[in-house]
This record gives sequence, structure tokens and C-alpha cells, in this order.
Amino acid sequence: MSELPHLNASGEAHMVDIGAKPDSERVAVAEGWIVMAPDALGSLERGELKKGDALGTARIAGIMGAKRTADLIPLCHPLSLSRVEVTLTVDVDSSAVRCEASTATRGATGVEMEALTAVQVALLAVYDMCKALDRGMTIEGVRLIHKRGGRSGEWWR
Amino acid sequence: MSELPHLNASGEAHMVDIGAKPDSERVAVAEGWIVMAPDALGSLERGELKKGDALGTARIAGIMGAKRTADLIPLCHPLSLSRVEVTLTVDVDSSAVRCEASTATRGATGVEMEALTAVQVALLAVYDMCKALDRGMTIEGVRLIHKRGGRSGEWWR
Amino acid sequence: MSELPHLNASGEAHMVDIGAKPDSERVAVAEGWIVMAPDALGSLERGELKKGDALGTARIAGIMGAKRTADLIPLCHPLSLSRVEVTLTVDVDSSAVRCEASTATRGATGVEMEALTAVQVALLAVYDMCKALDRGMTIEGVRLIHKRGGRSGEWWR
Amino acid sequence: MSELPHLNASGEAHMVDIGAKPDSERVAVAEGWIVMAPDALGSLERGELKKGDALGTARIAGIMGAKRTADLIPLCHPLSLSRVEVTLTVDVDSSAVRCEASTATRGATGVEMEALTAVQVALLAVYDMCKALDRGMTIEGVRLIHKRGGRSGEWWR
Amino acid sequence: MSELPHLNASGEAHMVDIGAKPDSERVAVAEGWIVMAPDALGSLERGELKKGDALGTARIAGIMGAKRTADLIPLCHPLSLSRVEVTLTVDVDSSAVRCEASTATRGATGVEMEALTAVQVALLAVYDMCKALDRGMTIEGVRLIHKRGGRSGEWWR
Amino acid sequence: MSELPHLNASGEAHMVDIGAKPDSERVAVAEGWIVMAPDALGSLERGELKKGDALGTARIAGIMGAKRTADLIPLCHPLSLSRVEVTLTVDVDSSAVRCEASTATRGATGVEMEALTAVQVALLAVYDMCKALDRGMTIEGVRLIHKRGGRSGEWWR
Repeated sequence: MSELPHLNASGEAHMVDIGAKPDSERVAVAEGWIVMAPDALGSLERGELKKGDALGTARIAGIMGAKRTADLIPLCHPLSLSRVEVTLTVDVDSSAVRCEASTATRGATGVEMEALTAVQVALLAVYDMCKALDRGMTIEGVRLIHKRGGRSGEWWR
Repeated sequence: MSELPHLNASGEAHMVDIGAKPDSERVAVAEGWIVMAPDALGSLERGELKKGDALGTARIAGIMGAKRTADLIPLCHPLSLSRVEVTLTVDVDSSAVRCEASTATRGATGVEMEALTAVQVALLAVYDMCKALDRGMTIEGVRLIHKRGGRSGEWWR
Repeated sequence: MSELPHLNASGEAHMVDIGAKPDSERVAVAEGWIVMAPDALGSLERGELKKGDALGTARIAGIMGAKRTADLIPLCHPLSLSRVEVTLTVDVDSSAVRCEASTATRGATGVEMEALTAVQVALLAVYDMCKALDRGMTIEGVRLIHKRGGRSGEWWR
Repeated sequence: MSELPHLNASGEAHMVDIGAKPDSERVAVAEGWIVMAPDALGSLERGELKKGDALGTARIAGIMGAKRTADLIPLCHPLSLSRVEVTLTVDVDSSAVRCEASTATRGATGVEMEALTAVQVALLAVYDMCKALDRGMTIEGVRLIHKRGGRSGEWWR
Repeated sequence: MSELPHLNASGEAHMVDIGAKPDSERVAVAEGWIVMAPDALGSLERGELKKGDALGTARIAGIMGAKRTADLIPLCHPLSLSRVEVTLTVDVDSSAVRCEASTATRGATGVEMEALTAVQVALLAVYDMCKALDRGMTIEGVRLIHKRGGRSGEWWR
Repeated sequence: MSELPHLNASGEAHMVDIGAKPDSERVAVAEGWIVMAPDALGSLERGELKKGDALGTARIAGIMGAKRTADLIPLCHPLSLSRVEVTLTVDVDSSAVRCEASTATRGATGVEMEALTAVQVALLAVYDMCKALDRGMTIEGVRLIHKRGGRSGEWWR
């Protein structure tokens, strides 16, 4: 017997049944970093000082990415997000941009995939804008940091 | 003057002009890891032994994700991929799944965003299937490892 | 403090929280015009007499566009439309086609963006079909004419 | 016989054949306005002074909207945009925001629908962010102002 | 008066109003076949024995296709699926692959279009993978076999 | 060794490399039927007499579906269609609607999946509009009838 809920007794992938799960308030928060060369980070910061458009573009990419989660992740249930917030902050000490995404819904299944997808897409958008300056950028530490709602209650990393 | 090519002189984001760039063969290879608890990795491996559907599902997610890159990344040019390959391998020593994606096109702009998006989406799909077993999984080391084509020639990490 | 609800205290865009808003029946009606040269309008009318396919195509484009609203508008909440109606009528006196779209849902947020998107997409589809005949067509007067449901009650222009 | 190229001899809509048209450089520029109450425009401006995120969000919506044109407009050919620029400017005298979008490709068909779609989606995004302040906003004057490439050569309004 | 619910009194297509229909548990099951040359079926089976990826890919395509139903079918209401299962089995006697898809939701409208779309897309994906071996494959017998929920109660073919 | 081109030597699915294939004119024609009860067909015909909107809606669904092929079929290459035509005809003798779709491109890979997807989606749209009248409708005989271009030359069923 398979232990992964998305695999049935024959080992075949399916979208698990959430029809019997009650609705509850669901919240998830995820984070991640993109580490880049100090010079590239400096250019990003100077662009930010001017107009704020580089990180603003990545923030919008993350929010719109959260809404595409069920389109991208094969076995994810479609759900109606009631809130999405994405913040991107320049961290000079670690020569990185940190992204944090928070998502919420009222429904029968959690929103952690939506928060993680927001982080991944926002960091990819930063990568895209900075790639002419540094090809060696690395996305690190993308993970869930908080989850609330559903049978499993509240969880903090 | 902004140094990020996607920001114009006023600091506003736009999709850069590639109209004058000649077509060339473009290849990109990216990689990344999802690190999880040994128990979760064990369950994933046992699911794999049966049918191969867990990593197979993530592989398809990555391939389809590569095709959605320009939909997700605001300033990415739409392009016609001529090849996408995604491999996922269980690495017991580091208690992780490694993903490598290779993309190619013939066109005026590179395919590194497509390779990176394939890796990100494939790893998110692994996360989704294993999240009931381990909430602490972390996606690490998502980065470009090879690029060929265009003015900048060949690059290896 | 920002006065636009989509901007937070730092001036950053986010998707506002509707988690605490009660569900109610929501209706919105929007309208708009595309003004074109009388000759182009005549050709459109003659095409209509034959088969009805030109305005029928635009009507379907509007209905499908309404369903894509949250994909297009960055900070829009995804919602499940319970009804969409789009009508397009030829107005010879103003040498224009008028579009009216009506949308409804039962939910925590309004459907005016869906009605406006339906009008915009339907008029763009008319533009596309007539553009070989008149390049000077102009889309005018796209606006909300009715809204019902939610805290603000009923509103008519 | 129908005079609209998208209708065949029976009056049925189809996607016209561009297989025999040679590739050429194609450019299109479109514009449009959203007129709102002076108070709403003032709030938008104050939000802009802080972070630039309101018009920045609409600009990204317009760019991404241009890439979705063939998804939205039933008979539009899919094409690969080589450049998209969207500018939004506050015009206090007319109490409006003006949007201008410029698109380019190298291909067998024009990019005016992409420029117009960018304008429509960017203005809808402004509407969405300001709708809590003014329900009576109207989108006006959405039209093509320039077109270059293809058999018909250069055109200015 | 038109007898098709999607056509209004004037014969124009619209998305019917489901706002007054109560929520209920909805289930639908659909099936279909793709008939191919015995040699092509043999190759498909041999590929399956190795890794299971051919039918696994088609299964994922079907599940993801079910989630795109309202994007594809103009007058379909968007809905949140609570379960999707797709099975594909090789039937040597009829030299065919049989697909069965089962979908569920809790809502105001049925899920038969989602089940049928899953079958159609899964069979198209099989076609795509086998088309180099047999151009004469035919998709047959795509139909509903079960439906439950809503005013009409339970139905079996 | 796997004989299906989409499976590599390890049996894993991938998007095959078309980078070395020369561009050529590509055409495909596919067909299919939806068989329904004579009463349902009669209602469909009466709706058609009035406005033509039922089959017109299905035709647009088919054209738009063709443009979504690479989004739906996991291993399909994205391509730019240069022409799509969909015809739907009522066939009283077989109590069915017949759909025929013709697609074309200039490129390195064929367009048969696009033609078949157009047929499948158009027939699903007919199903959707008639399902209140007949639950027993069956989609039959979806297959390729013509293909031209590429190494394999011209093919007729």
C-alpha cells in the first residue's frame, strides 16, 4: 500500500477526495531567497530607489502565480484565494532578496501550495530581471514557515 | 540610468526589444533539490517502485510548466520550445530529490527561464505529493548550470 | 496612509483580504461602445444578416473573457460566476456597436470587474473582425451601470 | 459574399489564412484613457508618490495582457512578441489616466490587437484599484494610433 | 422559444443562471476508447512495462484537463472540483485503450463536462504519444456513464 | 528500448527534440461525430434556424481549443497556427452533428494534434449545450483524415 495520499492502491496518481472535509479558515506563509553577486544586488537596489518597479514586478508575478497554482501543480485542487500578500526585501548582509508570501482561503483544503508557488514565481521574476548581471544566482530555502486551519491545527517552523 | 535591462531610463519595467537579435540555437540546463525527512523520502521511493507515478507526475508538471513560462514571468518573451527534458532522481545520501531540466529553442532569446521554471514547478509537484508526510521540506540550490547560444556563447557553472 | 485599498501602509500592492466578508448575491452590469466608419458598420451588419457569426463570436469572447478576469487583473480575487450574459447591438445612429454585459455570483466580493472585462473583450473581438475595414475604430464609454449586493447595496448610474 | 475577412462565403467565422504572407517587422501603438473623479485621481497620485505600485501594477497587467491576446480574441493568430512597452500617465487636466502601449514582432500578421489588449487590460487594472473610490469611472478613446509593417505600410492616426 | 437552455428567447447563447440552484454533492463518470493498430498497442504496452510513463502521462493530462473545462467550453460554469480520478487500461481484445474519468464537486451545477473533458484530453494525449506508430487511430464511444446529484437524482447508462 | 518516440531509453516521457527538423508547410484535417437522440437534434436544429448560435458557439470553442493544444497535451510542442477552420453540420440521417477541423502552420512539427483538439473541444461544446435534452449522447469517430508536410509527405485516410 502506498503511503503518499496522491497515489492509490495501484500506485497511480489521482486528485484526492476532499468532498467530506469541512470548510475552515486556512492560512499559509512561505519564504525563500535568491542569492546573487553583490554587484547585481547593488544594481537591483539602485533600480528600486528610482521607481520600485523591479521588486514591484516580482511581487505582482508572485500574486498572479498564486492564482495559477492549480493550473501548474497536477494534483492540486482549484480554490478561491481570499487574500494574497507577497513581500520582497533586499538583504545586503546575505547578498540576497528574501520573499515571503502569505495566502488565505475559506475551504476544505490548505493553501500552502499557493504560498510556495507565489514565492517560486516571484523569485523567478527577480532572476529574470537580474540575469543579465549575474548568471550564477541561486534560489535557496524555499519552504513553509506557518500553516493554520484544517484538522492539523496550527503549525510554525 | 538603470542597469537592469528590464527597467527603462525612468525606472519603469518593460519587455526588452529582441527584434534586432539574430536567431540562434539556444540551450539551457538548470537544476535544483528538494530536501525532505528520510521517512518521507522512503515513502516516495516505495511509491516509485510500484508504479513510478510520483516522479512521473512531477516530470510532466515540469515539462508543462516550461511551456507556461511567459504566462508566469511578466517580462519574459513568449517562445516556441523545440525540446524539454526533465529528470528527477532520488538521492538517499542527501535525503533529497534532484531535478534537472534541459530546454532548447531556435530563436532570438535564451531559454534559461524555461529551464528554471521547469525545475521549480517539478519540485513544487514533489512537494505537493509529499506534504502530508513532511511539512519541513525545503527547495534548495535552484540555479542555471549550462547555457549555450546567443552573443554570450557557451557557459558552464 | 494610502487611500487605495490595494496598497498597504508601505504603498505596496496586494490582494485585499475578503475572508471576513459575508457571502451575498452579487450582480453587476457594464456597457461600452465601439464606434466605426458607417461603411464598416454596414459590412458588419450584412455579415450579421447572413449568419449572425460576427456578433455571436464577440458575444462568446466576452463570456469567456469574464471567466478569465482573475487571470488578467493582478489583484482580482478568483470567483465562480453563476451567470454571464453579453448582448451586442448595432446602433446605426451613432455608427457603433453597443455591448452590455451582466454577471452574477454568490460570494464575498463583487463582480463588476467580470462585467467590465466581458465588455472589453467582446469589443476587442469586434475590433479584430472589422479592423481590415476601418483602422480608426474607437472603444468608448466602457463603464459600470448597475451593481447589487455586498455592504454598499444597490447602485445605478 | 461577406466583406469581413473572418467570415467565409457562408458567413461562418474562421481564423484567416496567413500562411502565404511574408514575415516583416510589425509595430503597433494604441492608447486609451480612464476618466475618474478628481478625488479618486488624487488618491491614486498620492499612492504613486509613495511607492509607484498602483500604476506599476497596471503596467505589468498590460504587458501580461498583451501576451494573452490570442487566448482572449477568438480569431487572433498566436504570435511571439519581440517587444512590449506600456506607459501610464496621470493627466490632472482631464482628470484621467492615459495609457499608451507599443508592441512589436517579426511575423506574418500585425500586432495591433496586442497593443489594444495591453491598453484595455492596463486600464481595467487601474479601474480595479480605484473602484472603491469612484464607481463612475469610464474608459474612453481606446484606439490605434500607429501601425507599421505588412502590405499596408505605415499608418498614423 | 428555444429549447436549448443555453439559448435565450432571441436564440443567443449565454451562460445560464445557476444562482438559485442549491448546492449538492455532484458526481459524474465518463468513458471513452482509442482504437489503434495492434502493433501500436504492443509498443504502448512494452513502454508501459518499463516505466508506466505513457499511460501515466495521459492520466495527468486528463486530470489537468478536467481543471481547464470552464476555460475550454464557452458556456460552462467555473467550479471547484473536490476529486478527479482517471484510469487508462489496455484492452488487447479490442486493440484499444479505455479511459474512465470520475469527477466530484459540491456545488450548484453538475460535473459531467469535467469528466468528459478529462476523457477527451487523456485520449488525445495517448494519440499524441502513439501517432508516430499509427495515423489511423480513432477515438470512439466518449460518453457519460453515471451522474449523481442535483434535481435529476441518480442516473446510470 | 522503447518504440514510442516520447519515451526515452529509460522509459521516461519527454518532449522530443524537433530542433534539427526543417520548417515546412503543414496541414492537418480531422473529423468526428456526436450522435444524439433525434429529439435533441431537432431542438438543436430549431435553435440553429433562429440565430445560428449553438453551432457557432461550438465552432468558436473548437478554434480557441486548437490554440490551447500545447497547454493541454503534455508533450506537444507550442506552435503558431497560421489557419484554423472548423465546420459543424447537422446530419439528420445518422442523428448526429459532424465536425471537421483543418489547421495549418509553417514549422518543424505537424498540426494534427491541433486539428484533433479542435474537433474534441467543438464536440464537447455541442454536448454541453444539448445535455439537458439527452444524457446519452456519444462522441464517435474522432480521427485524422488528412495530413501534409514534413518528412512523411501527404497522407489521406
